[in-house]
Amino acid sequence: MPKVTLKVLANKLGLSTSTVSKALKDYSDINEETKLKVQELAKSLNYTPNAFAQGLRNQESKIVGVIIPSMVHYFFSNIIDGILKEAEERNYMVVLMQSNEDYDLEKKQVDVLLSKGVDGIIISLANKTRDFSHLAKIIDYNIPLILVDKIAKTINCSKVLIDDRKASYDAVNYLIQKGYKRIAHFRGDLNPQNSIDRFLGYKKALLDNNIEFDPSLVYVCDNNSDFSDGYENAEKLIADHGNNVDALFTVNDLLAIGAINYFNENNIKIPERIAVFGFSNWFMSSVISPSLSSIEQNGTKMGEKSAQILFQEIESKHKQKPIEFQKVIIDTELIIRKSC
Amino acid sequence: MPKVTLKVLANKLGLSTSTVSKALKDYSDINEETKLKVQELAKSLNYTPNAFAQGLRNQESKIVGVIIPSMVHYFFSNIIDGILKEAEERNYMVVLMQSNEDYDLEKKQVDVLLSKGVDGIIISLANKTRDFSHLAKIIDYNIPLILVDKIAKTINCSKVLIDDRKASYDAVNYLIQKGYKRIAHFRGDLNPQNSIDRFLGYKKALLDNNIEFDPSLVYVCDNNSDFSDGYENAEKLIADHGNNVDALFTVNDLLAIGAINYFNENNIKIPERIAVFGFSNWFMSSVISPSLSSIEQNGTKMGEKSAQILFQEIESKHKQKPIEFQKVIIDTELIIRKSC
Repeated sequence: MPKVTLKVLANKLGLSTSTVSKALKDYSDINEETKLKVQELAKSLNYTPNAFAQGLRNQESKIVGVIIPSMVHYFFSNIIDGILKEAEERNYMVVLMQSNEDYDLEKKQVDVLLSKGVDGIIISLANKTRDFSHLAKIIDYNIPLILVDKIAKTINCSKVLIDDRKASYDAVNYLIQKGYKRIAHFRGDLNPQNSIDRFLGYKKALLDNNIEFDPSLVYVCDNNSDFSDGYENAEKLIADHGNNVDALFTVNDLLAIGAINYFNENNIKIPERIAVFGFSNWFMSSVISPSLSSIEQNGTKMGEKSAQILFQEIESKHKQKPIEFQKVIIDTELIIRKSC
Repeated sequence: MPKVTLKVLANKLGLSTSTVSKALKDYSDINEETKLKVQELAKSLNYTPNAFAQGLRNQESKIVGVIIPSMVHYFFSNIIDGILKEAEERNYMVVLMQSNEDYDLEKKQVDVLLSKGVDGIIISLANKTRDFSHLAKIIDYNIPLILVDKIAKTINCSKVLIDDRKASYDAVNYLIQKGYKRIAHFRGDLNPQNSIDRFLGYKKALLDNNIEFDPSLVYVCDNNSDFSDGYENAEKLIADHGNNVDALFTVNDLLAIGAINYFNENNIKIPERIAVFGFSNWFMSSVISPSLSSIEQNGTKMGEKSAQILFQEIESKHKQKPIEFQKVIIDTELIIRKSC
């Protein structure tokens, strides 16, 4: 079946395309009889407007772009879920891209989205991203940009994040109140802001409780999406410190689950011999044994909020109203389970 | 910064837009000096072609649409991961939509994708979808359509799936070889083809091994994305059959994990008292206790293959070559762990 266009409808009815277009949009300068005729034919031929052409005329594409580091990842799935829900309500389409934590790919994806003329962009940065000129380019193009969770502090745009420092402070403080004193930390990559802030929260909780910070208890997990990294560092931790460690706080749940597997296999009792506290509250954390205490990061809410702000900014732009950038901190909560 | 268009470039150089356009595309009827001048200016002004306008002229959008039932779902995340990789390589963008297992929403999303003029569509159907006229519409529009995993048998298009019946036959047969005889089944919704086929594979394995099929051992789990459904049905199973059941085969891992939680909490030993076998091999199945035997479904491979076929069909269509629909069965494998 050939595509039914405005022109096809116009030819069949002996009208101009502009009359047909106005009739479909229910303009008041078209008489009711014509409107009815056009609308009935459009319906019977299953006419659907060509939205690309429409977007081109309106200078809006009704498409927004989203770039995340990784797709197969519980937290990011939740963020996308939140974004899709908000977009659906507003009849926006979402183009999804994953950077695979690769800066060059992320940069290329931004170019593609700009070249396609999307109305706005939401990004959660790759861990390896240290240069932000691609973000500056989005702003130069006057395209609304929202950074979510993995942000660049120096870029002037709206941001949706959690208070990583406070969240990990709370977790470590909880462990200390429970009597744990030699608390190890599996931190993430040295670069991303989250992993820095989570480390700083850990350190501050120790200092505020008069516990000496021991750098030898901190392990850098480069590949922090991989739970075998948690397993291997747990092995190192016990080799290095033996009985002189009684708790472990990890930058994410995957590392904690890897560590729990090592402890379980080696009959190192959790939480009697060592307590474990994760971060992100992945679904699986509630079903492993022992169940893992963690920090609920509210990914869906972060996604929803990012999209809400993006659509506000797109609307303000169309109305030529000034945009005030927002920094929204989504609440986290401690989820206490059997691992501590 | 205002957007740099062909017209801006043309005005600055005193050339026509068609000359500038041809120069950028390296056409042979434009002299080298002009090409160089145009290309340098385009570069210095960060010109990026308006791909929507381009798509409109070329009758291709370089955008494909993907509709999945649910985003926060390990298997579908893997499918999308595979699709995104293939699209990235070919410079296609992917518009992602989730139907939330809702037929009306799925239908509306198809209309949106058609109205946007996407080049092709990949769908994994909602469990509730019983009417396929929206799929027929895609075919009427002459837009390549690939169905993945959750398919409609009667729709004439390419399909990528696994052999659900064989996979569950293999799993149940494995349990029988291990000596289990009273094998319960937590099946999915009555409607989707996968859940029907997995049930039929279960039944056939029993019959081929001369074990009587007992319908009272089959529990229908409507809400099969929820692991509490597995928990509750495990409770019912034990209440109904007491010691007269020695194994459980579930239509997905979430149900199995819910059941394992119930058994663990009630001190029903796995696999000594009851063995458990799942389906899909979610990441968490390897980290729970006891680790869960399951069927690896190769979601990423399914996504990759769907996208490969889609792009082949799009290319064939552009070259006006005939399209031969493919039905690709992706291999599954039994993953044996401690739960049986």
